[in-house]
Amino acid sequence: MKKIALLILVSLTLSFSTKAQNTDSIIISKIYNEALVGKTYENLYELSTTIGPRLSGSEGDRKAVAWSKKLLESYGFDKVWLQEVQVPHWVRGEKEVAYYTVNGKNYDVAICALGGSIATPAKGITAEVIEVFTFDQLEELGEKNIKGKIVFFNRPMNPTSLNTFSAYGGAVNQRSQGAAQAAKYGAVGVIVRSMSTKIDNFPHTGAMRYDPLVTQIPAAAISTLAANQLSAQLKINPKLKFHYKMSCQTLPDAISYNVIGEITGSEFPNEYILVGGHLDSWDLGDGSHDDGAGCMQSVEVLRLFKTMGIKPKRTLRVVLFANEENGLRGALKYAEYSKENNVKHLVAIESDSGGFTPRGFTIDSNAEIIQKFLAFKELLSPYGINEIGGGGGGADIGPLKPQGVPLVGFRPDSQRYFDYHHAATDRIEAVNERELKLGSAAITALVYLLDKYGL
Amino acid sequence: MKKIALLILVSLTLSFSTKAQNTDSIIISKIYNEALVGKTYENLYELSTTIGPRLSGSEGDRKAVAWSKKLLESYGFDKVWLQEVQVPHWVRGEKEVAYYTVNGKNYDVAICALGGSIATPAKGITAEVIEVFTFDQLEELGEKNIKGKIVFFNRPMNPTSLNTFSAYGGAVNQRSQGAAQAAKYGAVGVIVRSMSTKIDNFPHTGAMRYDPLVTQIPAAAISTLAANQLSAQLKINPKLKFHYKMSCQTLPDAISYNVIGEITGSEFPNEYILVGGHLDSWDLGDGSHDDGAGCMQSVEVLRLFKTMGIKPKRTLRVVLFANEENGLRGALKYAEYSKENNVKHLVAIESDSGGFTPRGFTIDSNAEIIQKFLAFKELLSPYGINEIGGGGGGADIGPLKPQGVPLVGFRPDSQRYFDYHHAATDRIEAVNERELKLGSAAITALVYLLDKYGL
Repeated sequence: MKKIALLILVSLTLSFSTKAQNTDSIIISKIYNEALVGKTYENLYELSTTIGPRLSGSEGDRKAVAWSKKLLESYGFDKVWLQEVQVPHWVRGEKEVAYYTVNGKNYDVAICALGGSIATPAKGITAEVIEVFTFDQLEELGEKNIKGKIVFFNRPMNPTSLNTFSAYGGAVNQRSQGAAQAAKYGAVGVIVRSMSTKIDNFPHTGAMRYDPLVTQIPAAAISTLAANQLSAQLKINPKLKFHYKMSCQTLPDAISYNVIGEITGSEFPNEYILVGGHLDSWDLGDGSHDDGAGCMQSVEVLRLFKTMGIKPKRTLRVVLFANEENGLRGALKYAEYSKENNVKHLVAIESDSGGFTPRGFTIDSNAEIIQKFLAFKELLSPYGINEIGGGGGGADIGPLKPQGVPLVGFRPDSQRYFDYHHAATDRIEAVNERELKLGSAAITALVYLLDKYGL
Repeated sequence: MKKIALLILVSLTLSFSTKAQNTDSIIISKIYNEALVGKTYENLYELSTTIGPRLSGSEGDRKAVAWSKKLLESYGFDKVWLQEVQVPHWVRGEKEVAYYTVNGKNYDVAICALGGSIATPAKGITAEVIEVFTFDQLEELGEKNIKGKIVFFNRPMNPTSLNTFSAYGGAVNQRSQGAAQAAKYGAVGVIVRSMSTKIDNFPHTGAMRYDPLVTQIPAAAISTLAANQLSAQLKINPKLKFHYKMSCQTLPDAISYNVIGEITGSEFPNEYILVGGHLDSWDLGDGSHDDGAGCMQSVEVLRLFKTMGIKPKRTLRVVLFANEENGLRGALKYAEYSKENNVKHLVAIESDSGGFTPRGFTIDSNAEIIQKFLAFKELLSPYGINEIGGGGGGADIGPLKPQGVPLVGFRPDSQRYFDYHHAATDRIEAVNERELKLGSAAITALVYLLDKYGL
């Protein structure tokens, strides 16, 4: 493919000399060679299999922080440090139970509590179900049709969206705000179709928020398969009874840490190139794609510089953020620290879209800055990095935006991400070693160019 | 990604008007929408789970032909027909057994016969092993070091190749010619490291050929994990004994069929756009990626034209070729038929690189023709089809080359293909529904443009 891509490659925005380009293309080629026999997969495998899930405040969270710090230290980076963060501490409790009853027979339903939900009463909740697809429908149905019932949000992610993140964006408010919306009309609970593009029997968890002015009701996700079956049953038996039982709860805040490592810049030690992901994960899988992959790729960027003897002009800083999933407290803490200490970031890059085959980078900044990234396209395109342009950075680097930092999101292929996202299937088995490593290479190549040419 | 890609898109080879482009981009968008809720996955699921493996001459082969013909007929295409082909009929026999013995203890080895291999004697073969990486090494070692031994070819696919097909190309001669080469020096058998980029315990089969002038010896593949372990053991115990037993055999040729369906062109009914894959598969998995995916995508191209009411100017012909894996007889038969009947093909397109996320197309033709394909890039690039250029077509369409037919290979992302290729893991579970369907959309979009604009 390399040859082909070179053949068809066109760039109107080239801003550096041909000689520099040749040097760069040689170094980028070496970065790829080194990354493809590198440590990203080996490290992710260890994180995923020896620690596994690491929801904020959990034992796994504590272990992951200690393990990551040790990993960074083992690479002999110039500085490794922890930044303390107070994090929410929600626990799932007993495995949830759910079924619906038709003609005296119970049909089990694959269910999980949404993160942040309250428990059901100890006996569970049993009620009729009303299926809706939008919040407007709640308004139309009104309290008379909803009161005392379980609201079932069943709007699927749009299968015709090319990018699954867009499809997710069009469905996720059911999960995050469904309980608060339904409770206004007297619902006793909500069950939400899992945010997934795959029809299978795994429920997908994720964060939900209550409205301080509205009664809190228990919120759960059911698998896409269960959602389809329940929907079909409701057409035949609209009065069927649904039962579910959950014992989740929110404990007092806990302590966690952003884990930070640095290679000091030789010319501009006070100018930082940040690369990171979030170390916390949901509790159902082992968080390999979300976001063990991004964390281990970010660590690998610095390791590749070190092992290849590339001395950066700017300081490279890897940040493994705490608590992205249900609080964003690590990101907020880091941004606060950055503001207070007037830290100068040339750029902040996040990898939090899974360890899939690289496609490109999106840049959240002004047109002039985006143009500068486009100048790198000729060098990256031979590696399948064709999609460079405006777009989002990432949740963890988002709070740096008010400080004027250009934000960059690493964009791997999105097709498989929501098969696994927040579900028990987000496990190391779902990660392809080569795709993961190519991500490390792509980010390292970009960091190399940003460090060399600035913005 | 769509917006981003459009933003950065550059084309110097545009050859049609802006108005036509707008119409085209609307139709291509509709093709994608329809394909993403289309039948490709559903059809592949049925082929893979109700028929499964379909090696030439097997019961599965016969069933797959009948099932495919029925499928094409169910779509009401203008013509559905079978083209008879005589095919080789090799059978694996009993599940193979292998182990090596160290200090009186036997260590099992995951092994499978290579397609076309002869059996071992009924008791199996037990002999010392000599590990080599190249054919030159055989020459250096000579008969005195090889005679009476099993030659173990252990050159891995190069992990630093960006495209895994290149890495495959650099290793596969061990599988295809290893037995013939080793037998020259008196080897009693060969075992070959599986052609895979993944370290696991599944052996990968594939075709091998004997040299008519050299003694035939039994040839097998062992898993990459077993290869690594055996290699390590040989360093400690170079005299260890390896045992393997296989009962495979070649039966008399059987009858199979190319399965063909057509939508007749409205303006140029005698000008054909061929799209196809191969219906046969190896026997260990269910052949979902190789090449159920390509077959069902090719069928979907015609179904999309039909269901969307797009009337092609040229005749669209889907061909599900027989016997690609161990003979290419279907391809040769079709090319012979084409030559004899002076069939005019505008182009022949093959999908035989797995059902992964689309990346591009490679064209095996002259520079002028390739340039015409590049003119389509602006319309396809928003869908992640960025890699269009010179390159191979496909094994099944290859024999049409001497007739001057431009050959086109559909190129999905290659990273995962050799994890599954020819192994028991090539199963429907390894196929992502969206990636597969995007392939159908990409090929249909290209066929739409080729039909409309010609070459």
